[in-house]
Amino acid sequence: MPKIDLDQRLQEDCYLLGEIHDTSLLLSRNAHFPWFILVPETDEIEFYRLEAAHQQVLLDLINKLSAFVGKHFSIDKLNIATIGNIVSQMHIHIVGRYQTDVCWPGVVWGCDQFKEYPDGDVEGIRDQLELDFPGLFTAAR
Amino acid sequence: MPKIDLDQRLQEDCYLLGEIHDTSLLLSRNAHFPWFILVPETDEIEFYRLEAAHQQVLLDLINKLSAFVGKHFSIDKLNIATIGNIVSQMHIHIVGRYQTDVCWPGVVWGCDQFKEYPDGDVEGIRDQLELDFPGLFTAAR
Repeated sequence: MPKIDLDQRLQEDCYLLGEIHDTSLLLSRNAHFPWFILVPETDEIEFYRLEAAHQQVLLDLINKLSAFVGKHFSIDKLNIATIGNIVSQMHIHIVGRYQTDVCWPGVVWGCDQFKEYPDGDVEGIRDQLELDFPGLFTAAR
Repeated sequence: MPKIDLDQRLQEDCYLLGEIHDTSLLLSRNAHFPWFILVPETDEIEFYRLEAAHQQVLLDLINKLSAFVGKHFSIDKLNIATIGNIVSQMHIHIVGRYQTDVCWPGVVWGCDQFKEYPDGDVEGIRDQLELDFPGLFTAAR
């Protein structure tokens, strides 16, 4: 697992799915949307100040996760963002959105609708990540 | 200027500052935040489906604009996002945020606070872009 500590708020709001290319991969506990979060191993809080090589790794992961969400969740749109106003630890949101979801067309940040994942669904997502990214994704179990 | 038409909503909500590397550069009319928007010349609506070379151009522009906002606006945090739930034409937000701004720590999308730019400020931003990015940024005048 990555060596940096996960912010307390991220720990509370998310499942730790595992690690992908030295980056923690989280899933929001809010089952209204397939909402993945990449947490790179850095103390830097602004994306543009990362070294170019690190940006390239993250760009590749954003592309891979975006394609994963597009492939498995029948979404209408992806929302990708790095915000950090509340949790300063750098994290990148990759959120699949449905035109029928509870916040559409608004953004998920600040949306107060919440739904728990049914038993087994999160483990199913972990399994799918292992299938899709063999040798790259390491599940946290 | 880029050959694709700007979405009507973007035209209404933003000033067209100019063009940078075949990408339209807009500024939100909302003066509460330094809120820049890159509109690449593409019909694709999802970032991850862009060709790798196009992604690299946009990554470079995100970095340049981020540094520009960081340098000139004394911000506390940058918010970077591509959402597209309302305006499907691909556009990338680069928003400087202040801990004292009217939406902090919430996001700007969906925030209903609005303030006009004073006369001359937008032209001042255009001038600064020309100074910082000579030969790369072409002002729309």
